[in-house]
Amino acid sequence: MAIFGLIEYDQATLEVRAIYDDIMATRKTDYITNFWKAIAHDPPTLKRTWESIKQVMAPGALDAVTKEMIYVAVSVTNQCEYCIATHTASARDKGLTDTQFKELMAVVGMASETNRLVKGYQVEIDERFKT
Amino acid sequence: MAIFGLIEYDQATLEVRAIYDDIMATRKTDYITNFWKAIAHDPPTLKRTWESIKQVMAPGALDAVTKEMIYVAVSVTNQCEYCIATHTASARDKGLTDTQFKELMAVVGMASETNRLVKGYQVEIDERFKT
Amino acid sequence: MAIFGLIEYDQATLEVRAIYDDIMATRKTDYITNFWKAIAHDPPTLKRTWESIKQVMAPGALDAVTKEMIYVAVSVTNQCEYCIATHTASARDKGLTDTQFKELMAVVGMASETNRLVKGYQVEIDERFKT
Amino acid sequence: MAIFGLIEYDQATLEVRAIYDDIMATRKTDYITNFWKAIAHDPPTLKRTWESIKQVMAPGALDAVTKEMIYVAVSVTNQCEYCIATHTASARDKGLTDTQFKELMAVVGMASETNRLVKGYQVEIDERFKT
Amino acid sequence: MAIFGLIEYDQATLEVRAIYDDIMATRKTDYITNFWKAIAHDPPTLKRTWESIKQVMAPGALDAVTKEMIYVAVSVTNQCEYCIATHTASARDKGLTDTQFKELMAVVGMASETNRLVKGYQVEIDERFKT
Amino acid sequence: MAIFGLIEYDQATLEVRAIYDDIMATRKTDYITNFWKAIAHDPPTLKRTWESIKQVMAPGALDAVTKEMIYVAVSVTNQCEYCIATHTASARDKGLTDTQFKELMAVVGMASETNRLVKGYQVEIDERFKT
Repeated sequence: MAIFGLIEYDQATLEVRAIYDDIMATRKTDYITNFWKAIAHDPPTLKRTWESIKQVMAPGALDAVTKEMIYVAVSVTNQCEYCIATHTASARDKGLTDTQFKELMAVVGMASETNRLVKGYQVEIDERFKT
Repeated sequence: MAIFGLIEYDQATLEVRAIYDDIMATRKTDYITNFWKAIAHDPPTLKRTWESIKQVMAPGALDAVTKEMIYVAVSVTNQCEYCIATHTASARDKGLTDTQFKELMAVVGMASETNRLVKGYQVEIDERFKT
Repeated sequence: MAIFGLIEYDQATLEVRAIYDDIMATRKTDYITNFWKAIAHDPPTLKRTWESIKQVMAPGALDAVTKEMIYVAVSVTNQCEYCIATHTASARDKGLTDTQFKELMAVVGMASETNRLVKGYQVEIDERFKT
Repeated sequence: MAIFGLIEYDQATLEVRAIYDDIMATRKTDYITNFWKAIAHDPPTLKRTWESIKQVMAPGALDAVTKEMIYVAVSVTNQCEYCIATHTASARDKGLTDTQFKELMAVVGMASETNRLVKGYQVEIDERFKT
Repeated sequence: MAIFGLIEYDQATLEVRAIYDDIMATRKTDYITNFWKAIAHDPPTLKRTWESIKQVMAPGALDAVTKEMIYVAVSVTNQCEYCIATHTASARDKGLTDTQFKELMAVVGMASETNRLVKGYQVEIDERFKT
Repeated sequence: MAIFGLIEYDQATLEVRAIYDDIMATRKTDYITNFWKAIAHDPPTLKRTWESIKQVMAPGALDAVTKEMIYVAVSVTNQCEYCIATHTASARDKGLTDTQFKELMAVVGMASETNRLVKGYQVEIDERFKT
């Protein structure tokens, strides 16, 4: 269980409830995931993290599914099981197909492999790619 | 410089040249990056890695730019400077806009932050996300 | 369960018991955590690791709580759940407050985010920070 | 060089200048590091990141030097050379002594070692540390 | 459970069965691990990954046990519990002794520690080691 | 350059010289690498690290080349360029052939790839591998 436990809506202060309300409204759901309930013990972190996530994950030049895929790619590389499970679910809710998921995993795997080969072989950046 | 140096086209065996040719033809370029020239000292690895990359990075359910973005996201998370430089260049060649790049970085950054918060707060996976 | 199981005090050799005794005396506890019981199957590693930890974690220019916080910061970044759980508990035993824990997590999260932005934007070290 | 280059104060928009001004005022310096100049190409990221860093790194239950040490610990673990160089300099400016730096590094090193031993020996969390 | 579940032999297509057969024949076992059953939902990834693993893990200039040890070293560093458990078992099946396992872990731990010290102290590569 | 600079033999205290002497005698060389000269500013860390490395890297159930390979595998996974360069050189001095190096890199690359696939597909440990 989370270190300080989970703060449910009923137990939350008005400040925390307002953020839960915004999460649910933005995501069009009546469910708050454990992550938010766990960090709600630190309202400034809850508020800052939600506002940042809300801004960053909103569709823009990249659509919502693409952003979720990138999120999953980072979470797999960082080996965060919670983040993989929740954001894969979220990506699928937003329309990620099974085939897209499989291609996503294939790219994540290959990039991880070549990242290591590059370092191991001590490859220097080509002149033309030095910005 | 790479551990065994770089194998230029002129110095390459016929086997290696055939792979260089396929790389250039597939990517519609006359340039081979240092990575391939560095691992060309191990032809089975060159061949296996190229054939895997060729298959995995080909447009499918995900387009080429999306795949390059995922590649960059993994490379940033793994802190591989070479891979970041070359695949960012490649993504831009394929049409990644500056705005898309900035959104990509914002998502990579936020995911890295929340990945850590999840672990630090010892958040458990919600029942509904247990597959 | 740990790969070779856990060596309890009663089962331990005199050599291992002496280290367990030192751990308990140093930490003013009668409890040995699973980590020590798991690596006790390799007495040289048990001894070397304990002596190093004892030296490194002893209060010095940094106090014991600060050292535990740094330990937790590294463990969260490395995603080691066991280390996070045990060293967070240890830090709290030594006086870490809930508010301090929350600030610790906030810094760990932000550093993880900016670490990625730096690499992704390919930022070079300012002249003045080159040692 | 950074991917889009560095935005100097003179070239900056009013929006970016206002953030540069706040960074300099908050940090009591007339110098803006390359990091901020590099991400200034994306004003929302510049603003969000600065406001978060400003909030998170401000002295609170943890003092400024302790927060910088945690930042360095994470950056070393993530292998971000830029972040290590700049935040070590910043920590020393704020009063980190050489002896404290050495103890910080010793703890970071030991935590990294035991993090791996724990995973390799497949050590399970002690019942008493399950939150 | 794996995201798409596990494909058992009986449920598998002929294409997947042929790969399962080759895995069992190559490894002289009648057991397929969950990993292959999980990625079997993406036959091209199953096929590419198996053929690569088969080639890479075959005894060559390095024997099979040495290759498994390297695999475990990487998996411990990446904190992949599944990979640690299965490849440690595989290494032991192939002849890894308990003493060798302990030495393997000791090296993995020490390398992780010195990797961090090097970065934290900002150590530059000696002239003689620049390739 | 290293944060506190490098301590050359001539400048070293008797305590540090004794360790340098032991390093040179153990390794049968008259050269001290930058790593030791950099951490020599913290004699307890120099002494503890050297004694640990000396014990751990000594041939035992695993020979010296195998231990160096494992060291390189960890360093590549942790992306420590200094450690990769120096320990690859060291491994080759001790007899690692070019072919062995190539096989080492191939295994490191493949393990990195499958580590990610396992997490991404959320594969659970097979009952038989639960220790």
